[in-house]
Amino acid sequence: MQPDHLSKQVSFIQEIDKIKYIQRKTKLFNSDRPENDAEHSWHLAVMTMVLAEHSDTPIDVLKVLKMVLIHDIVEIDAGDTFIYDTLKSHSNSDNERKAALRIFGLLPKEQADEMIAIWEEFETGVTNEAKFAKSMDRFEPLLQNASNNGGTWKEFDVDYNQVYDKKKVIKEGSTTLWNYAENLLHESVDKGILKKKKS
Amino acid sequence: MQPDHLSKQVSFIQEIDKIKYIQRKTKLFNSDRPENDAEHSWHLAVMTMVLAEHSDTPIDVLKVLKMVLIHDIVEIDAGDTFIYDTLKSHSNSDNERKAALRIFGLLPKEQADEMIAIWEEFETGVTNEAKFAKSMDRFEPLLQNASNNGGTWKEFDVDYNQVYDKKKVIKEGSTTLWNYAENLLHESVDKGILKKKKS
Repeated sequence: MQPDHLSKQVSFIQEIDKIKYIQRKTKLFNSDRPENDAEHSWHLAVMTMVLAEHSDTPIDVLKVLKMVLIHDIVEIDAGDTFIYDTLKSHSNSDNERKAALRIFGLLPKEQADEMIAIWEEFETGVTNEAKFAKSMDRFEPLLQNASNNGGTWKEFDVDYNQVYDKKKVIKEGSTTLWNYAENLLHESVDKGILKKKKS
Repeated sequence: MQPDHLSKQVSFIQEIDKIKYIQRKTKLFNSDRPENDAEHSWHLAVMTMVLAEHSDTPIDVLKVLKMVLIHDIVEIDAGDTFIYDTLKSHSNSDNERKAALRIFGLLPKEQADEMIAIWEEFETGVTNEAKFAKSMDRFEPLLQNASNNGGTWKEFDVDYNQVYDKKKVIKEGSTTLWNYAENLLHESVDKGILKKKKS
């Protein structure tokens, strides 16, 4: 007999293994192999360790790590939403909330509540920690697409203005990272791997 | 022109993407698909969030997260060492140290030193944080093998005593998790998915 509290935690640990099968649109660096959500979440976590010093405001790094580590667990039920799919981005939030209640709900009550609160804080994006976590979430695929000759920008025919509009979230977390990102976008246009309509 | 400090950090972020191609011997839960090091590291990090309360001693959870997130980055150069390959376990530590210097060395000096220190603390396994991180590293594949009808225990003909000898590291971090692990090993023997020689 295993104690019930720990058994619930082990059930959760087993369930979240499924995130390793959730494929993103974005590909690994210099690659055409899609990244999965576990790999993506790991990468954001190490990026947080390395880049936290560039946050515009003091942040609780432990909180940001928790956010990026669990932010995509809801996709086990709700699936990956491609960032430039504006229709699905709006309609999918109810499914994600249901998924959060089911999956985090496998944990003992108090821990489930804590995880759901962290996930909601990330989704809402108001606190300094959530802003920095979201800047990580936008920065990684930007670096990947730039390394992949345009990657999903080309694959899905997305233009500079659409990308700029999504990426400016980075600025909310870090001016330094935003300056880097903006330069990279301009370089991508100059290289012809990101199209820009003449205005 | 990007500032040099951040450029170094981005070079590191790109380099560690390669961990996603390093395959472990252990398979995903209820699966025959090998786990890669990024997925494994992500899973240990979320397990740390969930299971830290079972540590026998107070631990700095942020430190443990950093350890499990970066502990396998050296395998980009040194490769994965199968835990029951006793010969390679001994001979590979020089290669891993070289790898740590090269890969973490891509970062700005101060940050490289900090990462190497965290990696060494994990490897040495003396502090409470390293002990708990190592218990996570042993606990995940145990759960996976138990879910995979014996998994690598059967595949590589490993017996109960060899497994017990490796898994008792869990006890150094958490008596509660060790009790769970020990029960699971006994159940695995009873189910016939882990062989035990009669003494």
